Amino acid sequence: MELLQIAKNAKQAALELSSISSATKDNALKAIADAIEKNKEAILKENRKDVAQAEKQGIVDALVKRLSLNEYKIKEMVHGIHDLIKQEDPVGKTLATLELDKDLLLYQVSTPIGVIGAIFESRPDATVQVACLCLKSGNAAILKGGKEALNTNKLLVKLMNEAAEKAGIPKYSIQLIETREEVREMLKLGSYIDLLVPRGSNKFVKFIQDNTKIPVLGHSEGICHLYVDKEADMKQAVEIAFDAKCQYPAVCNAIETMLVHKDIAKAFLPKIAAKYKEANVELRGDKKTRAILHGIKAATEKDWGTEYNDLILSIKVVDSAEEAIKHINTYGSKHTESIVTENPKTAYIFMDKVDAATVMHNASTRFSDGYRFGKGAEVGISTSKLHARGPVGLEGLVIYKYKVVGKGHVVKDYTGKNAKTFTHRRLDK
Amino acid sequence: MELLQIAKNAKQAALELSSISSATKDNALKAIADAIEKNKEAILKENRKDVAQAEKQGIVDALVKRLSLNEYKIKEMVHGIHDLIKQEDPVGKTLATLELDKDLLLYQVSTPIGVIGAIFESRPDATVQVACLCLKSGNAAILKGGKEALNTNKLLVKLMNEAAEKAGIPKYSIQLIETREEVREMLKLGSYIDLLVPRGSNKFVKFIQDNTKIPVLGHSEGICHLYVDKEADMKQAVEIAFDAKCQYPAVCNAIETMLVHKDIAKAFLPKIAAKYKEANVELRGDKKTRAILHGIKAATEKDWGTEYNDLILSIKVVDSAEEAIKHINTYGSKHTESIVTENPKTAYIFMDKVDAATVMHNASTRFSDGYRFGKGAEVGISTSKLHARGPVGLEGLVIYKYKVVGKGHVVKDYTGKNAKTFTHRRLDK
Repeated sequence: MELLQIAKNAKQAALELSSISSATKDNALKAIADAIEKNKEAILKENRKDVAQAEKQGIVDALVKRLSLNEYKIKEMVHGIHDLIKQEDPVGKTLATLELDKDLLLYQVSTPIGVIGAIFESRPDATVQVACLCLKSGNAAILKGGKEALNTNKLLVKLMNEAAEKAGIPKYSIQLIETREEVREMLKLGSYIDLLVPRGSNKFVKFIQDNTKIPVLGHSEGICHLYVDKEADMKQAVEIAFDAKCQYPAVCNAIETMLVHKDIAKAFLPKIAAKYKEANVELRGDKKTRAILHGIKAATEKDWGTEYNDLILSIKVVDSAEEAIKHINTYGSKHTESIVTENPKTAYIFMDKVDAATVMHNASTRFSDGYRFGKGAEVGISTSKLHARGPVGLEGLVIYKYKVVGKGHVVKDYTGKNAKTFTHRRLDK
Repeated sequence: MELLQIAKNAKQAALELSSISSATKDNALKAIADAIEKNKEAILKENRKDVAQAEKQGIVDALVKRLSLNEYKIKEMVHGIHDLIKQEDPVGKTLATLELDKDLLLYQVSTPIGVIGAIFESRPDATVQVACLCLKSGNAAILKGGKEALNTNKLLVKLMNEAAEKAGIPKYSIQLIETREEVREMLKLGSYIDLLVPRGSNKFVKFIQDNTKIPVLGHSEGICHLYVDKEADMKQAVEIAFDAKCQYPAVCNAIETMLVHKDIAKAFLPKIAAKYKEANVELRGDKKTRAILHGIKAATEKDWGTEYNDLILSIKVVDSAEEAIKHINTYGSKHTESIVTENPKTAYIFMDKVDAATVMHNASTRFSDGYRFGKGAEVGISTSKLHARGPVGLEGLVIYKYKVVGKGHVVKDYTGKNAKTFTHRRLDK
């Protein structure tokens, strides 16, 4: 099928999906989970084809690892769907009720967004997760997985569609596209696609953002900081600094730069440096840092704006919390920023003035994640300033509509002489 | 000053503005209102210069009318600011509180968006309204008014700045740019400007939308419909149909097409046509309509997608509510759509299945407006599917940040063997 037709079908499906009941959606998710469980041998077989081909093409190990499914990963997939079923339906909630005048009521009700274009790299479990998030939130999904996972994705989407349709979900609610050319096409289809959700490398997300006028939910960079204040609890500072860098350095919510107050630097830096050394973290420091940690590399202007995604950390000694805030607001990517201090006032100012989706006090930046934030599955982490910010769950896939119910009310009666006045009375609080 | 510097200054001001207290913002608004009142003679003098120049240039009357200020309009301006002071501060509200684990709390708190670029046509009252909306919501504003209003706008912005700064608002919170070239420049400054709010003609808004990657809040078209169902109350249908077209035909929430169920068409159409005739409304109908209303023009495919903004209405007779819904979802601009029916089930289905920012039952589409929806001042009406939809007030100028407060919590403790589990307990409901 041509992409334009796929997009048109998705739009039609989305219109129908928007008024499907929670029970129908949850039944469909249940049927999808069952179908995946029942067909796991077939799924693993298709996946082995993909893996064999990837290996033959000499694709790097890390990618092959993400591509490979096994019994455990399929179990996790199914478990994830059951978790999603337990989440509250984000659609159809009355967010506000206002009496405009006698017998003239205004309801604000949550609705799906419409058609979601999800583009991601090799992991086939992402295909299932994104499709199910869209279904639960009443959105039609056009999915583009990594080309390496094509055989696996084809079967997964076929299974999901058969199960969902049997449960009463409109046809074309979940569609798979296969080629990069189709992705380029999709980026132009703003009349049919309401939101793009790219998942993958920074470069990949940046490419999507730079080449479409469709809104994009996601982040291209995670340049996160930890600021160790002069009034930090030393033990907490060491543990948080270590966790935020080393617990999983390849992810977006790990820190890239540590800022340390000058009054604590001499006591703190050698301690954390010893721990980082054990973990093979390469340190790069400004002049003041290197006066304390002899022999480490110099950090350049470029370092302050670099997401290493690796065991590398730049360190800067600052004169004040204000300097730390300023540094972060200059170089940060508005993702996640943390302060360690025992002074609640300093913490308050930091969390207030730092412009980021998530700000933290005495906690590791690694907590910035949809699952840890209690959202069940995660669509992604958004560094945008509109719609949804930070870790985004189902709530990021809905918007609202206003419903006005009158008894023949006309605007003429509210204008001119003897104009009726509005009551504007909130009925829900 | 160069635009890039203006944008950088705005960003800096926005960072400071985000943590300014409600009292300071309201005091600044009060001071602005006072300054405008006190300097009304000077404002009227600058405005007369603009008007004289516009007349000399032969600018159309309607535009000159929008450009002209008088004592009454200045009073309204001041009154609008006092209304805004009364509105609740949209910033700093705790939207949700979640315990992630013992002593690890997640707060979702509303924050300003950052820098708003507001571009609008000749009305100088819009300059004041938009600047004050931005100030109240803690956003820095870069304003571009109509070039015809430049003298008036310059004085207004000067007065607003002096008053605001004296009240403790950071410098560069409200800035005016003067040329079209600067607007074109501004459309490229996505690193500094977070949201564009254009107000003006459809063509103008469309131009902005088509030429920037910065998110745009607004609508370029208002193709609204009224569907008169077979079970409509005839009297209500006539009154609403008349109000929705004639009460103010030049605005976006007036209807452009009326859909009439075939079972009521013969009784209803002649009645409303008589009323429309008195008001000089030109009717254009499909074949079935013209079989009832003889002598009216034929409506073409083009009519279904046209916003007349004038005393012209296209009419189509439909076989069912479903056909009406389908027509609206094909040709509507997702703005405002209304049904007249005494059947609550039909109304429910219509309001559920029509994809529009505002859907109505037994009420005129003309109610779709920020003031009537109880929002005080209005930023605009959004037909976007993200962030803010329908009439948008102060709430459309804020987003949120997550604040996490721990006591030295690290992610390592929540992974692997003996992993701690999250409590994920809502503390606010």
